[in-house]
Amino acid sequence: MNSILQKQLATAAKQTEADLVVKNGKIVNVFTREIIEGDLAIAEGMIVGIGRYEGRKTIDAEGRYICPGLIDGHVHIESSMVPPSEFARVVLPHGVTTVIADPHEIANVAGVRGIQFMLDDAKRTPLDVYIMLPSCVPATSFEHAGASLSAAELAPFFADERVLGLAEVMDYPSLREQQPSMLDKLALAANANRLIDGHLAGLDANAINVYRSARIHTDHECVTADEALERVRRGMYVLIRQGSVAKDLEKLLLAVTEYNARRFLFCTDDKHLDDLWFEGSVDHNVRLAIRAGLDPLLSIQMATLNAAECYRLPTKGAVAPGYDADFLFVEDLETLKITHVFKQGALVAEHGRATFSFHPASSETEPKLLQSIRCRPVTESDLRIPMTKGNKANVMEIIPNHLHTNHLVTEVDVRDGAFSPSVERDLLKLVVVERHRGLGIGLGIVRGFGFKAGAIASSIAHDSHHIIAAGTNDRDLIVAIEQLRQQQGGLAVAKDGAVLAGLPLEIGGLMTRNDYTEVLNGLKQIHEALDSLGSSHAFNPFITLSFLALPVIPELKLTDQGLFDVKRWEFIPVEA
Amino acid sequence: MNSILQKQLATAAKQTEADLVVKNGKIVNVFTREIIEGDLAIAEGMIVGIGRYEGRKTIDAEGRYICPGLIDGHVHIESSMVPPSEFARVVLPHGVTTVIADPHEIANVAGVRGIQFMLDDAKRTPLDVYIMLPSCVPATSFEHAGASLSAAELAPFFADERVLGLAEVMDYPSLREQQPSMLDKLALAANANRLIDGHLAGLDANAINVYRSARIHTDHECVTADEALERVRRGMYVLIRQGSVAKDLEKLLLAVTEYNARRFLFCTDDKHLDDLWFEGSVDHNVRLAIRAGLDPLLSIQMATLNAAECYRLPTKGAVAPGYDADFLFVEDLETLKITHVFKQGALVAEHGRATFSFHPASSETEPKLLQSIRCRPVTESDLRIPMTKGNKANVMEIIPNHLHTNHLVTEVDVRDGAFSPSVERDLLKLVVVERHRGLGIGLGIVRGFGFKAGAIASSIAHDSHHIIAAGTNDRDLIVAIEQLRQQQGGLAVAKDGAVLAGLPLEIGGLMTRNDYTEVLNGLKQIHEALDSLGSSHAFNPFITLSFLALPVIPELKLTDQGLFDVKRWEFIPVEA
Repeated sequence: MNSILQKQLATAAKQTEADLVVKNGKIVNVFTREIIEGDLAIAEGMIVGIGRYEGRKTIDAEGRYICPGLIDGHVHIESSMVPPSEFARVVLPHGVTTVIADPHEIANVAGVRGIQFMLDDAKRTPLDVYIMLPSCVPATSFEHAGASLSAAELAPFFADERVLGLAEVMDYPSLREQQPSMLDKLALAANANRLIDGHLAGLDANAINVYRSARIHTDHECVTADEALERVRRGMYVLIRQGSVAKDLEKLLLAVTEYNARRFLFCTDDKHLDDLWFEGSVDHNVRLAIRAGLDPLLSIQMATLNAAECYRLPTKGAVAPGYDADFLFVEDLETLKITHVFKQGALVAEHGRATFSFHPASSETEPKLLQSIRCRPVTESDLRIPMTKGNKANVMEIIPNHLHTNHLVTEVDVRDGAFSPSVERDLLKLVVVERHRGLGIGLGIVRGFGFKAGAIASSIAHDSHHIIAAGTNDRDLIVAIEQLRQQQGGLAVAKDGAVLAGLPLEIGGLMTRNDYTEVLNGLKQIHEALDSLGSSHAFNPFITLSFLALPVIPELKLTDQGLFDVKRWEFIPVEA
Repeated sequence: MNSILQKQLATAAKQTEADLVVKNGKIVNVFTREIIEGDLAIAEGMIVGIGRYEGRKTIDAEGRYICPGLIDGHVHIESSMVPPSEFARVVLPHGVTTVIADPHEIANVAGVRGIQFMLDDAKRTPLDVYIMLPSCVPATSFEHAGASLSAAELAPFFADERVLGLAEVMDYPSLREQQPSMLDKLALAANANRLIDGHLAGLDANAINVYRSARIHTDHECVTADEALERVRRGMYVLIRQGSVAKDLEKLLLAVTEYNARRFLFCTDDKHLDDLWFEGSVDHNVRLAIRAGLDPLLSIQMATLNAAECYRLPTKGAVAPGYDADFLFVEDLETLKITHVFKQGALVAEHGRATFSFHPASSETEPKLLQSIRCRPVTESDLRIPMTKGNKANVMEIIPNHLHTNHLVTEVDVRDGAFSPSVERDLLKLVVVERHRGLGIGLGIVRGFGFKAGAIASSIAHDSHHIIAAGTNDRDLIVAIEQLRQQQGGLAVAKDGAVLAGLPLEIGGLMTRNDYTEVLNGLKQIHEALDSLGSSHAFNPFITLSFLALPVIPELKLTDQGLFDVKRWEFIPVEA
């Protein structure tokens, strides 16, 4: 420590040449919201001076802006379908040098092993991946979960300095009712002087008071400016989210003023690989904010200094001495055109491409993570939905691009005393197969996919990530589900008894072991296969499917234990 | 922990009555810089809700503003001449509920014992006293110090959660030259993830780079707006100081804009008891800032939220759930008229008076602290300044209200081969008596006090706090110094061979064991005695005296080891 510090001080004092000097740049100063000039001197990965410096290596910024590396305040890396090491190759070219990740998905599948995998894998990349520990695993008691995490199981992770605290506390009833297991987790974080993230979807001022009394200091679930202001007024930071599904930025920006802006930052939450690749990470949030009229320097400040302050990262979020040398060259502040990305003073991305290569996840990857689909093959009799009383059924209706569903009671086709899917009525069979221990199968009926043929299956099904499948006939459902079993999770599309496309996600059924380009190609094939089922382009059927098993969002959902009426907070039969 | 949290959550959720509800107040919201309305619910000393609440006890704010408790970002409590427990009775009525204290003075006298005394004594008061550990004891090598503090001696203090880091690093050469003892202290703070305060009086951009590279994150020594901006741009927080001597606020406010204000906070640094009592602590800074045209809510934000962020105090600096119930009733935001002060939900001051009583420092106070004047009596022969070559001497000239002195070479009166003070020429004898171990006496000549008779002596002499005395004749010098020996330090004025006034400061020769009112009365008597010496009212002779032994400020100073030429950085003889 002392020798590094000694060198940094000697470099700052110009007694030693800098490791690197960046000349001819316009430094974006997020403390004062102004552009300043000067050479940037770097030693041992840290900025040690702004002024006139000479270095063993010099880079000419060619008049570009030098902007602090961007920070994504809340992201589930698993939603990108690649692990942290490969995620880094996708987001670093977009200028994101630090992320606060919540490994909620892999933790629901594999518990502490899943969290440890993310920490270990993240070490292999220049991206700074900080971890908030999943606070609500399992998310609900209405499904069989892959894991259950108590305070005692989370505690050892606090020894890792990359672990900043407890992730989104989404179980409001457990807070409001002061359930001991939740109090234990809150106390764990508080005693370690760590942070606690919130998750206050649709909650009112009373709930904010309860959350804040639990020292919970962020929310990324605001969807209106009023909600955001209610939270900021009570001491929360508000994360302005723009992901693949939830797109809250435009509305939330209406809450931001010069007086309160320091309490806002950006996040993506859930963003799929293709969206990350083509559109960007929080750099996209910054661009959208600027396009909506926010001062570019304020937008950048929100994505850098504000995020660093919120998550208490004192060496992140600014281009200044004493800060990590994580910075970007930006050609134009209005469009935030990022040409070069430096991490701890090393070039890690140039013109949209990472400068470092794909390294396959180590062969030592926990075998349990690679063998996470543990159910037996599904048979036709497993999929039978008996209809003994008549032809009326409780049906789940999709609302395109929303997580909610409608609860319909409608007539369905009945054949041999069982439900028969109907393309004409757009009534498909929905199947959730318990995949962690092979405990059972939940069956239901869904309207809204609009497939003319075939079936789709996925092992991404929030939050327990069982296999979920929707199909126009049992044969294709069985083929698609079997394909997932064979490829150890991921996405699959079947038609006429054959697999049309399969994207394997072998790590916990959530992430690939391959290069991200294979995921991009795989997703392309999946979308082509969806076209041949007659799928609409109005929404993404796989994203929609992934939320149909989440039994905390109304009105009707399907878990591995059956059809769940969220309003009545109980299971109901399919037959009405 | 869990039972307190449980009660706080239950109160927030309105399942339990609050301990206290404050109704009918206008809440100053420092997150949004607006006034909001609502009942304030408090449980277990913490604010748990803003909304509609009922409590076992209700207080009517009668339409007053409810403002967060103010935070003094940097203060040497010793300069008030009372210990923390009594300091609390003086500053809490002024709305200051938290201070970041640097016990630099007592540490120079008594080392770790002095720091521990401050921590122990502070526990007896409702005021929150956080401690930054003195980083530069002794301050220089040109005087005998009462103590020397290495990293190893400071390390155990980090176990106390009130210890936030390392105090003002004022020894720039040790930083620039990377002296191992300084690197050890920096590493100690960095490894403990604690803060380090700076002290960059007059230093330029290069020095700021060096300080920041050492992760030093504040400066309270700026005197111009340009200096302040240079520091803020490089990642420092700037503390705007208004003390008894240094009054920087008016000039530094010129640096503050809406864009950079979050990086500014307030401090007093050194403020004497009478100034604190009659004028205030950082409440005075807030008032001055408002009077200078700063938005009142911004001024309050700087004194609260900004300070809490700078010092990473996540439960301080705001009136909101999850924050400590430290708040003030304020009648008018323009004049910041504070009527009531609450600390953790309890009333601690009302209409300018503390509601809790003086408690004399425990009889267990470390005896070494109470017996800190350990020199022998001074004799006439000790005070003889031989003049063997002629009548030219190196003379120190006071510049009223500045810490600097001029170095004169001038003719002096010589009698019996020795310097003789002259009232006509305003050439007085200056004496520094090593008081920790009785190691010696430094002698010099000073111009500018303008006394017509008598002598003054003090045991407050930055930074080693030896006895320092100035007099028109040896007899009164001996009487004044002997009075300090008898009363174990403090201030004394003598004339015609008798003591006119003495203010004992028995704790380390710096602080009283008595009620603060006795200090106020004692200071009044001291000022009356000074009048009878013919002292000018243009400056405070005791404050001036206290800086004449500080050998880091040009041009000429006197230590216990002799006359020090600060520009030449060496000792010189009195005889020119």
